[in-house]
Amino acid sequence: MTMSVQDLSFPQSEAAKLEPYLPPVHAQQPESSLPFVTLTFATSLDSALSLAPGTRTALSGPQSKAMTHYLRSRHDAICIGVGTAVADDPGLNCRLQGIETARQPRPIVIDPMLRWQFTRESKVLQLARASCGLAPFIITADHAPPQGQKALLEEHGGKYIVLGNDDTSPTHFKWGQILHAVRAEGLRSIMIEGGGQIINSLLEPGSHQLVDSVILTIAPTWLGQGGVVVSPARRLGPSGEPIAAARLTSIAWIPLGGDVVLCGRLAQQT
Amino acid sequence: MTMSVQDLSFPQSEAAKLEPYLPPVHAQQPESSLPFVTLTFATSLDSALSLAPGTRTALSGPQSKAMTHYLRSRHDAICIGVGTAVADDPGLNCRLQGIETARQPRPIVIDPMLRWQFTRESKVLQLARASCGLAPFIITADHAPPQGQKALLEEHGGKYIVLGNDDTSPTHFKWGQILHAVRAEGLRSIMIEGGGQIINSLLEPGSHQLVDSVILTIAPTWLGQGGVVVSPARRLGPSGEPIAAARLTSIAWIPLGGDVVLCGRLAQQT
Repeated sequence: MTMSVQDLSFPQSEAAKLEPYLPPVHAQQPESSLPFVTLTFATSLDSALSLAPGTRTALSGPQSKAMTHYLRSRHDAICIGVGTAVADDPGLNCRLQGIETARQPRPIVIDPMLRWQFTRESKVLQLARASCGLAPFIITADHAPPQGQKALLEEHGGKYIVLGNDDTSPTHFKWGQILHAVRAEGLRSIMIEGGGQIINSLLEPGSHQLVDSVILTIAPTWLGQGGVVVSPARRLGPSGEPIAAARLTSIAWIPLGGDVVLCGRLAQQT
Repeated sequence: MTMSVQDLSFPQSEAAKLEPYLPPVHAQQPESSLPFVTLTFATSLDSALSLAPGTRTALSGPQSKAMTHYLRSRHDAICIGVGTAVADDPGLNCRLQGIETARQPRPIVIDPMLRWQFTRESKVLQLARASCGLAPFIITADHAPPQGQKALLEEHGGKYIVLGNDDTSPTHFKWGQILHAVRAEGLRSIMIEGGGQIINSLLEPGSHQLVDSVILTIAPTWLGQGGVVVSPARRLGPSGEPIAAARLTSIAWIPLGGDVVLCGRLAQQT
């Protein structure tokens, strides 16, 4: 891999429109046991993140990409699930022009069963060695991560965070538990980027109060059936009839290049 | 049913933004054997038209509703599939303030097997009797529509149009055949509104050259899994890999109330 630095820039005029949906910049943020959570992702018109599981699909345009890196610069941590880590070999750094290494966001990878077989050549570790990003914290339920992986991670400044997992499912955590663990590391804000399972679980009613804002990009393309789709589980009303699963309030639609960016907050439904 | 007239209005400033995507107003339109086709519909963020098959779901806001009626005023015909006719008992008229009866769009219902059991009390016929709309033309493959239904339809100014159906499927027509039949009735433009099967079939590559423009509204809501979804069939590239099914070009994103309207043309892919 060439370690060419791609310096992105995002116009201040656009950044200003996003500001109401971002964590406070100056740290007179009240002490809280949970970080500020921004859920962000890009879909097609048919709500797909990618053409197929394990496939990376370029959907949004260059302006949206620059926005993603601007958003990363505004959070202490960025978070993905193991499926995305395995499929994409992501860099998980901020490539915004002029960002200092100390300001790079901490990558958080949620990997309950330690499926991610990262190596010294994984992009995120290459970037950490080049001081272009930080090594990941991997949240797992496995109490005995392999010693070699553990040493490799720690050599780069990363680590494993071992949590007791959710009783109801051996492969899933409760979001409250994850977010407490993130905040305990001194990380005051987290941008959660994907993939499908992660996003859908945060769009379910039980998670809504944990999410401070949602920033999603829609590209003017239909990927077609069979993609990895963002759509939360069916929700039923008091009489057993289906009702809307989630709704955004305080919204702004911001056209950006060929895409549109939708910012909002999840409505707290009763 | 109360036949209260709901007079809607749609601001000229908003209408101007839609104009590049609409059929020509003044009839120096070149003679063509096919009508101008506008595909229009409203979905949730997870690309659902409704919460469940046979259910009508209020998705978009009042401004989007006024837009729909403005769009109807700009087309000679409006078209739905039988599923929508059965589920919604739709009025299929234009309720824009000041529209003359002579300018009402002609409803076209695609009903190959004659599943729609309309009666004298169906909303579309009530509106026709009140001179607030036109009776439908029903496109069918059934060569012997029931005499009672036929008489009822003709009494209101509607009729059956019998087409030979597509060899490959007893319940589907070819779009070229339908659109020729519509144009043969003197109708120069048609707005196709739904439901899911109709929309998905027009978003498939074989139909793209028949569609002149697409105007879709997205509401900031996730309906959740199990809804009626707009997503065309999976499309494969030359090496058998999945590729994007359809893409819009010459696009405009227009925020409207809490929703966004996306206008564009289907990219002719090779």
